Amino acid sequence: MDKAFIDFTLLARATEETRTFKAGEYIFRAGDEGHEFYVVRAGKAAVRLGNRTLEVLGEGEIFGEMALIDSAPRSADVIAETDCVVVPVGEKQFLFMTSEAPYFALSLMRVLVQRLRHANQALPN
Amino acid sequence: MDKAFIDFTLLARATEETRTFKAGEYIFRAGDEGHEFYVVRAGKAAVRLGNRTLEVLGEGEIFGEMALIDSAPRSADVIAETDCVVVPVGEKQFLFMTSEAPYFALSLMRVLVQRLRHANQALPN
Repeated sequence: MDKAFIDFTLLARATEETRTFKAGEYIFRAGDEGHEFYVVRAGKAAVRLGNRTLEVLGEGEIFGEMALIDSAPRSADVIAETDCVVVPVGEKQFLFMTSEAPYFALSLMRVLVQRLRHANQALPN
Repeated sequence: MDKAFIDFTLLARATEETRTFKAGEYIFRAGDEGHEFYVVRAGKAAVRLGNRTLEVLGEGEIFGEMALIDSAPRSADVIAETDCVVVPVGEKQFLFMTSEAPYFALSLMRVLVQRLRHANQALPN
């Protein structure tokens, strides 16, 4: 069955509010409380767990959604890999999109599944 | 903000169709195509990647959702840990619940996030 997935780039472009970070700046740190997720509008952001870089995200990619979903603290650091511009999406908007835009939920699930497959492949035997 | 999560146990009980597996039987294997996810109604099922047991799932817990979300093959084996009864949920029903029952989507995301946090914690440095 075909599934339609949304393009988060469009979400980033449709939102007025942006935040700008210089290369090397922390966007958030592991352990922080999180009430927003982010879409990268320009530049690159690195997701780091200790010394390990889990992922480097570019335009239209999202991060910070985990704390929003399970209300637990941020699980990793995210650092501007280059100067970057991100679009924050708050909890209310997140819940609205989850309930009113099913492709949003499905698209977010797909991101989580891809990260999970990636993490599982990196597990030691 | 409070989020409502559904209890997958209710989903398992509300569905007529069940499948029964004897302890040690494969429910599916890594690499299989997947067009259903499953809710454990009774007994226990183990998710295994090679020799590593990722998780042992009991009543009301779900598995097999990943292949449904991203249409990629099964990422792990799932084996009946004890005699067990599972309820299959097909792709159409999955898409219906994702779009019409927002707490279903949110609850599924929470399962994925918990698995992702767990996998990330197990990563070598």
